[in-house]
Amino acid sequence: MSDLPPEFALIGRHFAPLAGSGTDGLRDDVAILTPPPGRDLILKADALVEGIHFLPTDPPDLIARKLLRVNLSDLAGKGAIPIGYLVTISVPRGTSDAWFAAFAAGLAQDQREFSVHLLGGDTTSTPGPISLSLTVIGHAEPGKTPRRGGGSAGDEIWVTGTIGDGALGLAVAQGRLTDSTGHLLNRYQLPRPRLGLALGGLARASMDISDGLVQDLSHICRHSNLAAEIEVARVPLSPPARAAGPDWLETILTGGDDYEILLAAPPARAADLAAAAERAGIALTCIGRLISGAPEVRVLDTHGQRLILSTSGWSHF
Amino acid sequence: MSDLPPEFALIGRHFAPLAGSGTDGLRDDVAILTPPPGRDLILKADALVEGIHFLPTDPPDLIARKLLRVNLSDLAGKGAIPIGYLVTISVPRGTSDAWFAAFAAGLAQDQREFSVHLLGGDTTSTPGPISLSLTVIGHAEPGKTPRRGGGSAGDEIWVTGTIGDGALGLAVAQGRLTDSTGHLLNRYQLPRPRLGLALGGLARASMDISDGLVQDLSHICRHSNLAAEIEVARVPLSPPARAAGPDWLETILTGGDDYEILLAAPPARAADLAAAAERAGIALTCIGRLISGAPEVRVLDTHGQRLILSTSGWSHF
Repeated sequence: MSDLPPEFALIGRHFAPLAGSGTDGLRDDVAILTPPPGRDLILKADALVEGIHFLPTDPPDLIARKLLRVNLSDLAGKGAIPIGYLVTISVPRGTSDAWFAAFAAGLAQDQREFSVHLLGGDTTSTPGPISLSLTVIGHAEPGKTPRRGGGSAGDEIWVTGTIGDGALGLAVAQGRLTDSTGHLLNRYQLPRPRLGLALGGLARASMDISDGLVQDLSHICRHSNLAAEIEVARVPLSPPARAAGPDWLETILTGGDDYEILLAAPPARAADLAAAAERAGIALTCIGRLISGAPEVRVLDTHGQRLILSTSGWSHF
Repeated sequence: MSDLPPEFALIGRHFAPLAGSGTDGLRDDVAILTPPPGRDLILKADALVEGIHFLPTDPPDLIARKLLRVNLSDLAGKGAIPIGYLVTISVPRGTSDAWFAAFAAGLAQDQREFSVHLLGGDTTSTPGPISLSLTVIGHAEPGKTPRRGGGSAGDEIWVTGTIGDGALGLAVAQGRLTDSTGHLLNRYQLPRPRLGLALGGLARASMDISDGLVQDLSHICRHSNLAAEIEVARVPLSPPARAAGPDWLETILTGGDDYEILLAAPPARAADLAAAAERAGIALTCIGRLISGAPEVRVLDTHGQRLILSTSGWSHF
């Protein structure tokens, strides 16, 4: 549906080099993909809009990488292996060739890092802000992909990496927090999808954390019809997040932009999970458990006392 | 990446009823799809933007159906069978529930008509015009999907249905042409993807016609490194298109919005092609042939004389 006159040249110059097999170098209308035999396909689509999810001043290569990575993170949250993606790009007329070049360079860099290829898409003009949409396709062991609602009472709750860095990075970007290491800002600007952890047969429920640990865990609780208890002291923090101090605890637990994996697994699977994480080079930490009860997330302090989120932050129950 | 607060309710109310198996009723982040064993997957993504591809006053159900159908037409142009789709929807804050209800109703209607299901997607806000993106997934016989560049000298050129109705319908919508039958306007407003014609092993090159017969045929010529000759008298026209008269010939041949299938096939396949089209209930007409020569499309009048497109329309060579 493109109405950008030089589309053919644009695609050939910037995007054809990104195209995988089955795309005929983007010279065709469609991509042809031979799916891996005997595997399930895992699909996800996300949109990013200028002024909502990124700023007009953000570098195009970082926008492209974020667009790809937020979708890859959803695959990671299900233990899937990515294959490729389709992207639609709506930009104002007169968007410079340099913008497209930088955007494509960002995609190229992450294609190498994550072993995925461009499968197709569309470029079109818009009278409004830049609007981007990306659909990613991956594969996983058939019939074993964990759902949100698969948790059982007694399952242990695990997270990868560290929690809260992205939300604290936003505070750094806004000048509300300082971090001389640059770690937090980097975590905010560029999600790191935790691909490589095969969850099929190990996790009963899983997802990636994008809207904050507590909110995303509440989805697993609601769909599994269980409560969750997590212990603040066990939530893994990076050194800069720890240095931010207790005033930032609410931000860390609820702030979003983590792009870590959250999963529930039976205790009998703990050793296998730990071994899989070690093989993948991904830190994995048990932070609590699913228990019988009305769906809710209970956060416990070091004394086992419940912390309650109030409008003014976390306080003792 | 949604930032629309009532997203969960919105999705549950309007989009969950559209979801196919493997989506867990859209309660999960990803869709799980078991691909048809031994088949190739055929993938396509297109974007539609308010103010570019549709008007703010267009009915939401028609916008939704057009979004789905332009992508289904790309599958039809390759002889593929659709499975499902992912859609991302960026709308201004405060977009009414009625808008979403109508949009979803349009999708529901076409899901029934074309036997496809919603596999997932994303809703988000935008400070600009409505931006929509849809990725469709289908399947086809492995290794046999026609490419644009597969044509051979001597192949016959065929088209489905009738040519030019969509472009003439736009002229009707703009008050430049009258059509008491309503046929032309309807063809412009609602593409009719010609699904059901299995092209694998019959066509050497194929695509759907969306940018005008001459331009789309020029793609087949360029990628096949051949010239094409088509005879104006053989191009199938609807009665209202024929009634429009010779002044509209250029519009008919170059205007776009046909959403018919264009294909090249060896003469030895003509009988099989005709039989396949009859089984599918799709009209199929031979309009010319591919010939050796520099890539270009030659349009011949009833005397075999070449018509040349000039800025003022078509004239004799």
